[in-house]
Amino acid sequence: MTDPARAAARQTRVIERLGRLVACPSVGADPAAAQGMEDARRLIEGWLAESGWQGIRRLHGGGAPAIFAERMDAPGRPTLIVYAHYDVQPADPVAAWTTPPFVATRRDGRIHGRGTSDDKGPLLIALEAMAALVAAEGRLPVNVKLLIEGEEETGSPSLPRILRENAAALAADAVLSADGARWRPDLVSVNVGARGTAGLELTLRTAGRDLHSGRYGGMVPNALHLMARLIASLHDGDGRIAVPGFLDGVAEPSPEERAAIAAIPFDAAAFLAPTGAMPWGEAGHAPLERLWLRPTIEVNGMWGGHLGAGAKTVIPHEAHAKITIRLVPGQDPAACLAALKAHLVAACPPCARLHFGAEKGQAPAWSLAPDHPLLAAAEAALEEVHGTRPLRVRIGASLPVTALMRDILGIDTVMLSYATADENIHAPDEFLRESAIGEGIAAWIATLRRVGGQDGADYAAFRGR
Amino acid sequence: MTDPARAAARQTRVIERLGRLVACPSVGADPAAAQGMEDARRLIEGWLAESGWQGIRRLHGGGAPAIFAERMDAPGRPTLIVYAHYDVQPADPVAAWTTPPFVATRRDGRIHGRGTSDDKGPLLIALEAMAALVAAEGRLPVNVKLLIEGEEETGSPSLPRILRENAAALAADAVLSADGARWRPDLVSVNVGARGTAGLELTLRTAGRDLHSGRYGGMVPNALHLMARLIASLHDGDGRIAVPGFLDGVAEPSPEERAAIAAIPFDAAAFLAPTGAMPWGEAGHAPLERLWLRPTIEVNGMWGGHLGAGAKTVIPHEAHAKITIRLVPGQDPAACLAALKAHLVAACPPCARLHFGAEKGQAPAWSLAPDHPLLAAAEAALEEVHGTRPLRVRIGASLPVTALMRDILGIDTVMLSYATADENIHAPDEFLRESAIGEGIAAWIATLRRVGGQDGADYAAFRGR
Repeated sequence: MTDPARAAARQTRVIERLGRLVACPSVGADPAAAQGMEDARRLIEGWLAESGWQGIRRLHGGGAPAIFAERMDAPGRPTLIVYAHYDVQPADPVAAWTTPPFVATRRDGRIHGRGTSDDKGPLLIALEAMAALVAAEGRLPVNVKLLIEGEEETGSPSLPRILRENAAALAADAVLSADGARWRPDLVSVNVGARGTAGLELTLRTAGRDLHSGRYGGMVPNALHLMARLIASLHDGDGRIAVPGFLDGVAEPSPEERAAIAAIPFDAAAFLAPTGAMPWGEAGHAPLERLWLRPTIEVNGMWGGHLGAGAKTVIPHEAHAKITIRLVPGQDPAACLAALKAHLVAACPPCARLHFGAEKGQAPAWSLAPDHPLLAAAEAALEEVHGTRPLRVRIGASLPVTALMRDILGIDTVMLSYATADENIHAPDEFLRESAIGEGIAAWIATLRRVGGQDGADYAAFRGR
Repeated sequence: MTDPARAAARQTRVIERLGRLVACPSVGADPAAAQGMEDARRLIEGWLAESGWQGIRRLHGGGAPAIFAERMDAPGRPTLIVYAHYDVQPADPVAAWTTPPFVATRRDGRIHGRGTSDDKGPLLIALEAMAALVAAEGRLPVNVKLLIEGEEETGSPSLPRILRENAAALAADAVLSADGARWRPDLVSVNVGARGTAGLELTLRTAGRDLHSGRYGGMVPNALHLMARLIASLHDGDGRIAVPGFLDGVAEPSPEERAAIAAIPFDAAAFLAPTGAMPWGEAGHAPLERLWLRPTIEVNGMWGGHLGAGAKTVIPHEAHAKITIRLVPGQDPAACLAALKAHLVAACPPCARLHFGAEKGQAPAWSLAPDHPLLAAAEAALEEVHGTRPLRVRIGASLPVTALMRDILGIDTVMLSYATADENIHAPDEFLRESAIGEGIAAWIATLRRVGGQDGADYAAFRGR
């Protein structure tokens, strides 16, 4: 076959397999979808066996198992964990889909269906790229350990245990992830950081029960008024966080960071137009600086008093709030939560009592070392495939899997997904661009070849940092 | 019979009748209690017929009818509407009652049961007092029109129509109400005012949907943060209302009002102890001044974002609040609502949109003329019965029936209930003090005799004010 014919055959095979994988409704959050989960695992395991992967087995951590397989083809060369996941988000609301969610449907150069973009399509792109390398050269240019998780969409509850209990089997130099979408369809980019996260719930009480506003109004505090004051006190009038100590350790963006961000074409108003929101944020920082390099405190939910229909003349005695924070390099999640609590306690008047409830899992911000050899390989590969140097970007969200890989296995992650962030992931009409398949296979092949050719790259220097 | 024997017989009869009336579960809010409502009406109508009341009939306004009857025994003397109601609150939660709610049960000098205090006991006290007058003198010393409502506990929705369509039959000089509890068991008092009320709902929107705090956090406004700022802006740091124009027309309490309030024994901390609330309120005013003579703005409910279990990292796009206000003399409900709206609109930043929703029925504050002849008669009667001059007090709540009587019939109301505000009305274990029965009958007899003897009292001068 000619090269174009081979490429077309690979594309056809990915689309055919994606159809079969989408047809397995592997909704991790839905106990009724257990068969779909099992069907997806068996399909993938079958393809791995067919392609000569070794040591295929399931890693159990208490929930849905992860699939493991390896090819230790390249003695003396780096070993990569290739990460992906086979579980998907629920299809709700099903009625909002143009075509059925578990039937892969091609139209307008896109493949629609739950999981096409997150993460079944990118998983198959990575597997196809490695199959192509083996077909061409009889082996992979690097050692690869596959880790295909089944709980990514439900928060990876078993992954820490799986990583800990299989640390020897998973020993590697770095992770190359087929998850984590590309930022934008119009830019070639590689992600080098994510914000950290933490959270808490709080309850403010002013009395033992709601009180009648006629019998008590003017003599007693109102829990909602006091909660409003507490929440309003978290930011100053310019949108800057006003919690003492919270910003300790947060560096202002450097001139280089500012210049790099300024070089990225980004129109905040156009970006936000589909959401109906107007640009807003901390004065003195560009929108992408605020998203990537500035922490946030967000109240995710707040409630108290009469929430039903009609009027009820009560003075509410309880107010509740759920708060999460996003953190940037230099911030410690526990210290930030402590600063937040201390501020709330100090701002709460003596006529109210404050109780802190459930805390959310904490993760610090994550930054990929700018001189990491896997990053260098991926950037060179992307430039080779796309003809343009990729931009280094960050994300404002958190990447729990990336943090776990570093915390437990001591290794860093480079994301090389060919999904794109606009492909309706977690929503109706999820899709994958068909053009991503050929590009993605080429980029994976080029990346793995470059890692294999990195004579003297010191991956060990980046472990455990 | 001797006088004490007569008094004992009257007390026995009120207790016996109260038992029969409590056994009719006349829960106005419960469609399943229609038979209980009808049974209560028939019992009362039977007693009225037995006592020689004339013109007994039902006044219909679209809902539960009111019972009307009259005795025009005193030509040339004032005509009073005697007001009470036969409907009661639901008994929920039934399991919290010590004895069954619809079985009147005597213990410790109290009669327990739903409606004993609100308002079946006070109704029977008034009827017994008038029966005693007729028994002693063959006639009442004044003309009386009974109006026994069946919708007081559900907001009197039909009462405006009943009053309007029967204005001629209900023509009177003033209302003497057997509803409206005495303030405290340790004080003899008469109520001369109530605060007004109004309310609105508002919704604040910052986007078309909730946004992911990782993908958008730092770039878009948070509806809950902005709502918190709006609510916090309603009061200054001293608890004083900070809405421009809202306090226009509100007079500072006069030295006389301050002195009168200071003369009332009132320990705010002790009063509030059962509620678990600590005293709080606008600086510079005593607690009873704040309750009676200062307006309030209370947020009765507030909510937005994720209210369920666990954490959800969203930036809420909508926040809701329900607000009611309490008004004092000098304030116009519509003008106060307009000032509140104008303030909220001015305080809302351009990145959010504010929508005002359902408004609550408006009522201005109510004050009884200090020189009203019915007030003078009631005060003299109370002093005669209790041996102490009653204190003039106000209530912080609103009295819709009182306002309707003035708005539609043009006449003022004096409350002469012998219920007391601590008798668990609207709650489990409602009770009436047995001692109130004899005192109440004596006070009603004394009041009606004094009105009958008020030669030259110019009731007409107080109509339509």
